[in-house]
Amino acid sequence: MTAYRLASIPGDGIGVDVTVEARKVLDRSAELFGFSLEWTEFDWSCERYARLGSMMPDDGVAQLSAFDGILLGAVGFPGVPDHVSLWGLLIPLRRAFQQYVNLRPVRLLPGTTSVLAGRKAEELELVIVRENSEGEYSAIGGRHNAGRPDEFVLQESVFTRVGVTRIIRYAFELARTRSSRVCSATKSNGLIHSMPFWDEIFAEVAAEFPDVHSEQMHVDALAARMVQAPDRLDIVVASNLFGDILSDLAAAITGGLGMAPSGNINPSGEFPSMFEAVHGSAPDIAGQGIANPVAQILAAAMLVEHLGETVAAQAIRAAVDRVLDEGRVRTPDLGGTDTTERLGTAVAEAL
Amino acid sequence: MTAYRLASIPGDGIGVDVTVEARKVLDRSAELFGFSLEWTEFDWSCERYARLGSMMPDDGVAQLSAFDGILLGAVGFPGVPDHVSLWGLLIPLRRAFQQYVNLRPVRLLPGTTSVLAGRKAEELELVIVRENSEGEYSAIGGRHNAGRPDEFVLQESVFTRVGVTRIIRYAFELARTRSSRVCSATKSNGLIHSMPFWDEIFAEVAAEFPDVHSEQMHVDALAARMVQAPDRLDIVVASNLFGDILSDLAAAITGGLGMAPSGNINPSGEFPSMFEAVHGSAPDIAGQGIANPVAQILAAAMLVEHLGETVAAQAIRAAVDRVLDEGRVRTPDLGGTDTTERLGTAVAEAL
Ligand SMILES: CC(C)[C@H](C(=O)O)[C@@H](O)C(=O)O
Ligand SMILES: CC(C)[C@H](C(=O)O)[C@@H](O)C(=O)O
Repeated sequence: MTAYRLASIPGDGIGVDVTVEARKVLDRSAELFGFSLEWTEFDWSCERYARLGSMMPDDGVAQLSAFDGILLGAVGFPGVPDHVSLWGLLIPLRRAFQQYVNLRPVRLLPGTTSVLAGRKAEELELVIVRENSEGEYSAIGGRHNAGRPDEFVLQESVFTRVGVTRIIRYAFELARTRSSRVCSATKSNGLIHSMPFWDEIFAEVAAEFPDVHSEQMHVDALAARMVQAPDRLDIVVASNLFGDILSDLAAAITGGLGMAPSGNINPSGEFPSMFEAVHGSAPDIAGQGIANPVAQILAAAMLVEHLGETVAAQAIRAAVDRVLDEGRVRTPDLGGTDTTERLGTAVAEAL
Repeated sequence: MTAYRLASIPGDGIGVDVTVEARKVLDRSAELFGFSLEWTEFDWSCERYARLGSMMPDDGVAQLSAFDGILLGAVGFPGVPDHVSLWGLLIPLRRAFQQYVNLRPVRLLPGTTSVLAGRKAEELELVIVRENSEGEYSAIGGRHNAGRPDEFVLQESVFTRVGVTRIIRYAFELARTRSSRVCSATKSNGLIHSMPFWDEIFAEVAAEFPDVHSEQMHVDALAARMVQAPDRLDIVVASNLFGDILSDLAAAITGGLGMAPSGNINPSGEFPSMFEAVHGSAPDIAGQGIANPVAQILAAAMLVEHLGETVAAQAIRAAVDRVLDEGRVRTPDLGGTDTTERLGTAVAEAL
């Protein structure tokens, strides 16, 4: 029996609430599909920061590196500035483990409706392939003339040939397993250094995949298309920032952030990959048992899929679909009054 | 009788088609409301670039500086890279004339329907106040190790205290004339130099306007809110890039890009302001008489409003509303078969 060692970092706020449920579902799937999971839990969080002055220990990366996968809740809490909490945990992990792909599939789940008028479920199924290791999210930059009227700030974006090529290639390879269509988000008319470079590499990689249909759109027009003609999009490949914005938008048109999973993937397998919901820690509703655990359960399904347990992953997704379709158990965001725990248990039972 | 000197730069593609109609409507409004317009037309465009090697003459800025206002069509044509066409005309003009406000009001016009399900017109009325002179659109940056495997590109964003303060203050002042609500687009959790600075200044300016309700959202969550709860937004203040993306999205949920006007405004009046549709030059449908001129006509209304001809501006908007509401004259994007010219004439007559 294959045994996997998994790390769980529930983090803050509703991250904690939903991670319990995702583990419950994963444990049940292991029993049913003949593998075993050995969990180690880490209390790395803003709460730890408040206590000890850092989000994770100095050797945090080393502690995680031997695991087969990581399930992350969410981080962020009022009083701890985001650029502390996230750059002290989420972003360093994405980078240290070369999780250069942030994979964000969305689809309209059964029993949910889109905010878009008259769209059928099959028109609302797309994948954002987001660059996750460089680009606009860079620690390079700073402030000049601080406190003076002529104060200014520089913020550097960094795009490397290696970084851009590998994410675009990943998108094209993924396209071969799906619709064979890739749309690249650019903004070469405004960002005249980074985006023409991105476009150039996109054209080079596209030439390696003559069987895949490729196009590019400016990110402003692409955001508009996502709400006007989402059926014309399948795989969208985008930089770190553009992928961030487009994936929230994609989640919003397909049932909301309570439903959207995300994988921070190291495709070579050299380092562990990390799975999380797209949503944040939502401190305002934390601990009340009202958060929707579906996004985190679907993230857990991506985790076991990444481990090679494809059948288990499909079964988890099918169980989620069944529970939502029946509509008997619904958290408040789905129009019901059930708890996080109740929905998690329902999915585990539906397995 | 007040006489205004206006510059018209029809530009490329459908920019030419729609600018003719907007001028027709403006000329008619001048007759009716007792002012006169003296037009000078400039052929600055990609076509000029192909002929003479530059989008506009070297003294282009000087030639325009004495005008009371500028009506711009659109620029961009296949074969001329965007970063040539736009950085050779649109963007230098925005900057030379310190048009640091890009004002983008949207509302659901009569006779049109939103892509969002079940939203009433009054829930779909917002204004994007976009920073228009600095930020992510910067010419600073470049390529290192060109052509080598370790090639990379840097792209600098530049945010100044002066630039950020004045755009945020503009948004708050505007709020006092409307809903008294301002939402700031941030991304301080990813862009840890520029956006915390933006947030800091937002908080400072907000403190000067205790009567205005202020909040901030990460741009990813804000994009999601725009489609999930647009009624909770009124004035959105955003950086150059975020404002670009959010304003296309705002246009997309309120009848599409054929309807959305935009003003590049120099609030001090020291330099001319410039008005244009949000849409681009759409070369694929240019010259066919099928482009929707409404966005450009509404941009023209913003122009006369900026000149102080408020009654004329209101009359133009009312004429557009009436024509759209009657629905007898509709361009193809509105589901009809009428021409650009026919719709322009209908609005001029409805005045
Ligand atoms: C054409 C392009 C440079 C421009 C911009 O991004 O500013 C356009 O998209 C706009 O919104 O006015
Ligand atoms: C929390 C934040 C830094 C993060 C990001 O922008 O990457 C989040 O929005 C996400 O999408 O994973």
